[in-house]
Amino acid sequence: MALVVQKFGGTSVADPERIKTVASHVARTKREGNEVVVVVSAMGRTTDDLIRLAAEIGPVRPGRELDMLLTAGERISMALLCMALGHLDIPSISLTGSQAGIITDSTHGKAKILEVKADRIHEAMSGHKVAVVAGFQGVSEAHDVTTLGRGGSDTTAVALAAALHAGSCEIYTDVPGVFSADPQIVPAAKRISRLSFEEMLEIAASGGRVLALRSVEFARNHGVPLEVRSSFTWEPGTIVDKENPEMEQAIVSAVTNDASEAKVTVTGVPDRPGIAASLFRALADRSVNVDMIVQNTSREGTTDISFTVPKDDLEESLEITMSLAPVIKASAVCSDSDIARVSLIGAGMKTNPGVSATMFEVLAREGINIEMISTSSIRLSCVVKAADMERAVQTLHNEFGLG
Amino acid sequence: MALVVQKFGGTSVADPERIKTVASHVARTKREGNEVVVVVSAMGRTTDDLIRLAAEIGPVRPGRELDMLLTAGERISMALLCMALGHLDIPSISLTGSQAGIITDSTHGKAKILEVKADRIHEAMSGHKVAVVAGFQGVSEAHDVTTLGRGGSDTTAVALAAALHAGSCEIYTDVPGVFSADPQIVPAAKRISRLSFEEMLEIAASGGRVLALRSVEFARNHGVPLEVRSSFTWEPGTIVDKENPEMEQAIVSAVTNDASEAKVTVTGVPDRPGIAASLFRALADRSVNVDMIVQNTSREGTTDISFTVPKDDLEESLEITMSLAPVIKASAVCSDSDIARVSLIGAGMKTNPGVSATMFEVLAREGINIEMISTSSIRLSCVVKAADMERAVQTLHNEFGLG
Repeated sequence: MALVVQKFGGTSVADPERIKTVASHVARTKREGNEVVVVVSAMGRTTDDLIRLAAEIGPVRPGRELDMLLTAGERISMALLCMALGHLDIPSISLTGSQAGIITDSTHGKAKILEVKADRIHEAMSGHKVAVVAGFQGVSEAHDVTTLGRGGSDTTAVALAAALHAGSCEIYTDVPGVFSADPQIVPAAKRISRLSFEEMLEIAASGGRVLALRSVEFARNHGVPLEVRSSFTWEPGTIVDKENPEMEQAIVSAVTNDASEAKVTVTGVPDRPGIAASLFRALADRSVNVDMIVQNTSREGTTDISFTVPKDDLEESLEITMSLAPVIKASAVCSDSDIARVSLIGAGMKTNPGVSATMFEVLAREGINIEMISTSSIRLSCVVKAADMERAVQTLHNEFGLG
Repeated sequence: MALVVQKFGGTSVADPERIKTVASHVARTKREGNEVVVVVSAMGRTTDDLIRLAAEIGPVRPGRELDMLLTAGERISMALLCMALGHLDIPSISLTGSQAGIITDSTHGKAKILEVKADRIHEAMSGHKVAVVAGFQGVSEAHDVTTLGRGGSDTTAVALAAALHAGSCEIYTDVPGVFSADPQIVPAAKRISRLSFEEMLEIAASGGRVLALRSVEFARNHGVPLEVRSSFTWEPGTIVDKENPEMEQAIVSAVTNDASEAKVTVTGVPDRPGIAASLFRALADRSVNVDMIVQNTSREGTTDISFTVPKDDLEESLEITMSLAPVIKASAVCSDSDIARVSLIGAGMKTNPGVSATMFEVLAREGINIEMISTSSIRLSCVVKAADMERAVQTLHNEFGLG
């Protein structure tokens, strides 16, 4: 008997009808002879509604109280799902993060899972009950309710699958898997049937919104195979698993895009050890999440450093960088929020030289200027003007035959 | 430094503006030099909305899951209240029923409090924080979330006040106290400034909806003085405390009315020991909540038994009674749901004969027929036609000079 962890996101449980549909699917999986542990998010826009209520109270939102507020959401969806399972004669029990033994640190709002003490889940399974676990939440060692932050429910599902040695971890969402490009930009984009953890990490990190980076990291570290599927069509989705050395890798699996960042450039910095360190330490100290960093070789003893940050952090980043400019003797600081990142991802890239050359040629042929370049062994990213983003994605998707 | 428990009901925290108003009041109480522990209900109609969601799923509602669902409500209100207190620079901490140590039995939906382990509340107080506790909820010894049923938040407040040896327990609601009659029926009704526990119990049991019977019983048993006040006007309300033997008692404090029950009459029952027992045991076994019971002395070896039940239970009561009629050799069973109970309540009644005579005379003068009579030492209840109820209340209120 295989143990399956099934995670249903907010759109999958958005209303009572959807919850009943999810219950039927869980019941079917169970009747096919599997053991099932379910992880649910809050219904649809519940979390946003709760945050709006908090905003009406005012700007002070202590993390502990915000977590207390937000964790109301999953209680509702999981209790309703258990009721729906009851109608299908599937015995079940809802468990809060705390009851499911999701022990975290005390960083409210983005707690890290320290340990999973799954006693009550094991107890539910020995009683032939489906455990329906609240995603996104845990409990600190000080017995305070915590939340895991963005993508938290995916992380709960993966952590449980790892702790329970589940055969598979199915992540149900409103799209049927991971696509070779955003279908809204590239109508010919195709569902990818299989990805390595590394490819999925690069996709998540470079603009793919299907799975949160963090849950993929967790899955990779614990060797938990994932399947991303749709709870609307129930068709087979995208499997994310260890790289299979016997299979030939696709050179390019996907083209991703991300217009959520802005670029900061510091020019004329003396090319001396410690300059970059002092700049990025100052940014890190203020919790600015720097993404790409590019530094060119120096010319006449000075160099330019460019980096990207989330648009929300741009103002603060500029403030920090400008106040530091005289100290590091930079000649100027400028920024551009009208940019986008376009990336090619593929595990086969590392053994296929020439992908970067093709990418740059294609962009050049389209008259698209490249502002920054950054690479990993399985990813190639170019920063371009935001207005060029869609055209870049479409052309690259076509050029690499992903449709 | 006095310790005050303040409980705020659903209308008191119905929206963010109301929550801010409540926070100001708590802050003021705290700044006046008191220690404050707050108990909150779910916002406004939250609980009804959650029950409606459950109804959309279907009729199966396991108690444990319904409790998991409903306890989402107080999490929201208490977290928002803590945020609002934060804006007023009042440090606070929200505590679920479980965190506040409200240990109950496992009767989901109407759990009984077994014990209060107030460690975290004491910890909050030593840290000069206002503990904001979720009303209505507790945790069973099996670590499952439970709810206390109707009036549950009042019960939480009283239980905490008893466990913490609070100087007072203020119950804030949308009316400024307990009135001498329902002001919608008797516009001249006056707020009663002081009542004994026994009077309050009789008022709650005979139709007064301000305080739940159960919380008053708990307060009486633990000697916790209550004050019922309005969170809209903040003016002094009604104090409910031990009877003060040195004060002269009002003969009649209030007139109450209750049209929520129906009457069942079993006629021609042989007047033999055990007949009433077998009837009411059968009703009790099916959890029918019988309220008044009246049996007349027998005439020609048979007697009539009448009793009242909540209208919702009428059908089941009739079914039980009719199936039992041949066994107990009753000649007929009939029912009337078009009735109402009108009661006079006053601690002074027991030492003032003649109140009943006056009541019956007043009703007779108004041409109102009395269908059943039942009395306690401080209460006199008459069942009348529902259509006569308001007139009976108005006339009695006037006759006993309560305006």
